[in-house]
Amino acid sequence: MASHLRVALFGAGRMGKRHGRTIALECPKATLVAICGPDLAAAEALASELGVPLATPDPATIFDDSSVDAVVIAASTSAHAQLIIEAARSSKEIFCEKPVTSDLVTTKEAIAAVDQAGVRLQVGFQRRFDKGCVAAKERIERQEIGRVEMIRDTMRDPSPPPPEYLPTSGGLFRDMSIHNFDNVRWMAGDEPEQVFAFGANLVDPIFEAAGDIDSSVVSIRFRGGGLALIDNSRRSGFGYDVRTEIFGSEGALFVGYSRETPILHFSDRGVTSDHVHWFLERFDDAFVKEIQSFVASIQNDTEPSVAGRDGHVAMAMAVAAEASIREAKPVDIDRFLV
Amino acid sequence: MASHLRVALFGAGRMGKRHGRTIALECPKATLVAICGPDLAAAEALASELGVPLATPDPATIFDDSSVDAVVIAASTSAHAQLIIEAARSSKEIFCEKPVTSDLVTTKEAIAAVDQAGVRLQVGFQRRFDKGCVAAKERIERQEIGRVEMIRDTMRDPSPPPPEYLPTSGGLFRDMSIHNFDNVRWMAGDEPEQVFAFGANLVDPIFEAAGDIDSSVVSIRFRGGGLALIDNSRRSGFGYDVRTEIFGSEGALFVGYSRETPILHFSDRGVTSDHVHWFLERFDDAFVKEIQSFVASIQNDTEPSVAGRDGHVAMAMAVAAEASIREAKPVDIDRFLV
Amino acid sequence: MASHLRVALFGAGRMGKRHGRTIALECPKATLVAICGPDLAAAEALASELGVPLATPDPATIFDDSSVDAVVIAASTSAHAQLIIEAARSSKEIFCEKPVTSDLVTTKEAIAAVDQAGVRLQVGFQRRFDKGCVAAKERIERQEIGRVEMIRDTMRDPSPPPPEYLPTSGGLFRDMSIHNFDNVRWMAGDEPEQVFAFGANLVDPIFEAAGDIDSSVVSIRFRGGGLALIDNSRRSGFGYDVRTEIFGSEGALFVGYSRETPILHFSDRGVTSDHVHWFLERFDDAFVKEIQSFVASIQNDTEPSVAGRDGHVAMAMAVAAEASIREAKPVDIDRFLV
Amino acid sequence: MASHLRVALFGAGRMGKRHGRTIALECPKATLVAICGPDLAAAEALASELGVPLATPDPATIFDDSSVDAVVIAASTSAHAQLIIEAARSSKEIFCEKPVTSDLVTTKEAIAAVDQAGVRLQVGFQRRFDKGCVAAKERIERQEIGRVEMIRDTMRDPSPPPPEYLPTSGGLFRDMSIHNFDNVRWMAGDEPEQVFAFGANLVDPIFEAAGDIDSSVVSIRFRGGGLALIDNSRRSGFGYDVRTEIFGSEGALFVGYSRETPILHFSDRGVTSDHVHWFLERFDDAFVKEIQSFVASIQNDTEPSVAGRDGHVAMAMAVAAEASIREAKPVDIDRFLV
Repeated sequence: MASHLRVALFGAGRMGKRHGRTIALECPKATLVAICGPDLAAAEALASELGVPLATPDPATIFDDSSVDAVVIAASTSAHAQLIIEAARSSKEIFCEKPVTSDLVTTKEAIAAVDQAGVRLQVGFQRRFDKGCVAAKERIERQEIGRVEMIRDTMRDPSPPPPEYLPTSGGLFRDMSIHNFDNVRWMAGDEPEQVFAFGANLVDPIFEAAGDIDSSVVSIRFRGGGLALIDNSRRSGFGYDVRTEIFGSEGALFVGYSRETPILHFSDRGVTSDHVHWFLERFDDAFVKEIQSFVASIQNDTEPSVAGRDGHVAMAMAVAAEASIREAKPVDIDRFLV
Repeated sequence: MASHLRVALFGAGRMGKRHGRTIALECPKATLVAICGPDLAAAEALASELGVPLATPDPATIFDDSSVDAVVIAASTSAHAQLIIEAARSSKEIFCEKPVTSDLVTTKEAIAAVDQAGVRLQVGFQRRFDKGCVAAKERIERQEIGRVEMIRDTMRDPSPPPPEYLPTSGGLFRDMSIHNFDNVRWMAGDEPEQVFAFGANLVDPIFEAAGDIDSSVVSIRFRGGGLALIDNSRRSGFGYDVRTEIFGSEGALFVGYSRETPILHFSDRGVTSDHVHWFLERFDDAFVKEIQSFVASIQNDTEPSVAGRDGHVAMAMAVAAEASIREAKPVDIDRFLV
Repeated sequence: MASHLRVALFGAGRMGKRHGRTIALECPKATLVAICGPDLAAAEALASELGVPLATPDPATIFDDSSVDAVVIAASTSAHAQLIIEAARSSKEIFCEKPVTSDLVTTKEAIAAVDQAGVRLQVGFQRRFDKGCVAAKERIERQEIGRVEMIRDTMRDPSPPPPEYLPTSGGLFRDMSIHNFDNVRWMAGDEPEQVFAFGANLVDPIFEAAGDIDSSVVSIRFRGGGLALIDNSRRSGFGYDVRTEIFGSEGALFVGYSRETPILHFSDRGVTSDHVHWFLERFDDAFVKEIQSFVASIQNDTEPSVAGRDGHVAMAMAVAAEASIREAKPVDIDRFLV
Repeated sequence: MASHLRVALFGAGRMGKRHGRTIALECPKATLVAICGPDLAAAEALASELGVPLATPDPATIFDDSSVDAVVIAASTSAHAQLIIEAARSSKEIFCEKPVTSDLVTTKEAIAAVDQAGVRLQVGFQRRFDKGCVAAKERIERQEIGRVEMIRDTMRDPSPPPPEYLPTSGGLFRDMSIHNFDNVRWMAGDEPEQVFAFGANLVDPIFEAAGDIDSSVVSIRFRGGGLALIDNSRRSGFGYDVRTEIFGSEGALFVGYSRETPILHFSDRGVTSDHVHWFLERFDDAFVKEIQSFVASIQNDTEPSVAGRDGHVAMAMAVAAEASIREAKPVDIDRFLV
């Protein structure tokens, strides 16, 4: 591997911009050489901002260029599978935003292509790089709370996404809870066995209209007997809420608070702190670190920190949660992992 | 009703002492006139401490004494049903520790006896009188968080009870989670429709040996569509953990922290606060207030704040949670409320 | 000493009521036998509420009654000196609200009378009985933070007292800061050597009109070299603010937060907790415990926890702070302790 | 002004590295073109790390190069005055680490040279760019707490600096408290009138040996009547402690907590959070922003956010505090500002 990495980016939307800036500005040993997206104007604008020489709507331009070492896929979810497969075939290292693809069949195909090509695939579960989550995981591994027994994992957005986002989102479990599925599995250090879910439409009629739910509570049983609870909502009524509590045989760890600035305001209405409003702000550092880690894993020839398998299992948990609601019973994860 | 209330106490154990002291020392308009329990030495010791003239092992002594206006039942759960029924028949007002009885059949019989006699029955769900919970309920009713959509309710004891307690405990759901069942129903302001539970044995082999579980996660769906999550453990590895988070359409309320004293200790190991170690300490005020409220409801001729029906529904939720584990599926509460 | 203590109360105002209720309701081994105050109606009302047989405007009635073992003085500060001296002469044990008297001359006279009579005098510095302060002191004595080096002590009332209170208050330092003076001396475990003060009139013109200040910052140097900072204000603009930070050679302790209920409210305005609004609420437990401690010290024949000397030194610190402002320089405490 | 700024750096120590990295990596519109320092090896190492073409021990190389637009001075304090004066004479824009110089005479000379040359001088009070402090200042200006009446400002290092640092440090007030002096003046929005200080040697004999103190409490009175308290220590016994409390007529703002990661650890020893250990970590963002602000002020032709005057007044406050200790009385700031 050349000591300096040449990276191409797919997607110039919200996450494309985030990852593009990281590669261009915060990875000294990598260069962003091309931005590819169906919205050429957006790709060109980002390329101009970041001093990237090439913007193109045509993925083949990237795949045919043997000087491109790696790709970062932040395109729409429906495009992931095809991009991963082609990137693998042209021997590019791959970072792909979560979810790997929108369903289990294509996820398996994509991972198979990656395995066959012998390239890396890192999945964009950025909580794996969050300062708080990483510190919790390290403390668990140092046995600070004994054996992990129970996990409570919460995530709620400040307000619903725009209606036009819903049809391509994949639904609450594949789009949002998938972060929690990966997180509880990571914190548990165990594989999930069974999942049960209740879903509800409480937030906005647009979700029901799209055949989706907007609120959910999910119970998970791990192979080793541990338990987890996940609750999600598309609207908090306050800021961005993402917290994890891990209970062990000898203590517990709580990860996450919601303050944006370290300020308390004392008034006749009480004592008030602010809260973080948006995931890009909450996970700003983690988004940078996951890309830096991807670049480092290539340059140091190590395994990526979050593998295709992790994306696969999280998707199976999401699909199992959907089945649990449909069938009104707990569902084995293995049914979706064969 | 005489303006001054004459109260008899059943039970001189942990909760008997707690309630006895409240009646004797913190209810100016009530007098503790007798303590009854099978362990006569314990009853006599408590009577001596509190200056109570009578200690007896014989319930009939109490029921036959027409000068006794009310009874507080803090005997072992297995004795509750018979004591309630006899107290009702002798027209005594009744406060009974949770659970009302150990099963649904006797719960219904006891409540029927109470209804027939036209006396009061208040159930010992002390969280209904906790400063924090009461403030949360009032804020919900003042619409401070809009419509209640989701509730997370946690309770874990610092360490397991003594093994000899288990056979009479009724099991995790009837003994411990029953507080959470009542609490989420109260906070939701709605009736539960369906319950799903995972149980686990993670804490101590004594639970499995007693045919019980020691850890559980429970999902609840309310009639109005709201959701709740309850997690319990017989051992926290730290102090007594009891917290509730209520999420509404316009915000959220978190009730409960675990500090005992308002002290932060800064050292090279970090910043440390202490935590509450025991439920008697955490709910000290609430235990006093629930008895004072019982006394006041009699003297003011009002309904008790926590009715027999509340005890009945919470027990049905516990029984449904047990059925959910046994049948490995979500269970309708109504099945146990006919 | 008779095992059961007969106590008389002077004063039926705010603190008179507080202490009267403690003696009558929360000291099983003491009986409140008389209430004495110039406002006979107030004394009678409190006597009636608490079932006390005697209310009188005449102190001699109390002092001439040899069956009275102890007195609790919660009269106006200007009456303290005379009441202490007469109580001592008639061999009553004495609890006196802070300050001992309104000036150093009468404080010395009162303490001399107490010493000559060989009775106890406990001064009402209730922070000495506050759960948080007591825990901090114990941790300091257990060497948890090493040698005490610096103390920051803050107290501010939610809003100014009524204007009619000011002429008799003794001024900010003798009325309010005196609590801080005692507290920093107690926490330091050392004697104060020098004090410097800045005063200001920022809150309300009524203070300047009364020849008083409403805001102050005070620096103190202890004999052992340690330092303390005290800041006071007659109006916080929020709730009742009383907090102490003790910095040692190996760490620090922070005592005090201002939450009334353990509730956090999450809304689009941020995360809000409430705060304690009033000292009677903040120190409710401490007020009970100081009286119980006084009763116990008599019954167990031990020294009172807060001695006349403590009241004397705190008053000398207040007088020295006043001199510091007047003379615009740091002032030796010893100048006022001869 | 050229749209792209060419910047030279003086100093390759702790702060030189920090500022060098900011210019080289986080200021897209500026280029770091030279690093100058007496320790050539250090300058060369940093130049190599950052891809800077020139490292030199000779300041004249920088001042004689008319293509250099601006200088960032992070040299030892004793070199500041000469570097500022020469930079001003060669018409470079200037960012200088605090303090401007080590005494008032040279501070005035340096500022005079800057004024005469008509260049910018920004002083390195990084708290002016801290997220928390900035938010507090904005809230004060939005009148969220009414009129500012009192400020408590604390700063203590985790552990003493190396002994060899002391002779050149300028002493506690000029080296450390100077940050607090600037901060309380900024938050007060008023000019300081009088200062009183107690100093102490409690931490380590090295300070006394160097003729310095290691602990101090300082009281400040502002022209408008407001008050401030500052406490400093060279050793906390825990982490890096920097907090500000601003009390206004209608409420208060508390800025700063000490957590590094958003983790709470619950164990049988209590609930523990970590704390920030070092100022480079605590103010990492602020150090970046102050340099970015300096660059922007040049490119947008605006005044720098922290002016030479700010450095001058803060130094006068430090010198006045020293005089207060020496003369054992409160001291007028104006005496040192003529």
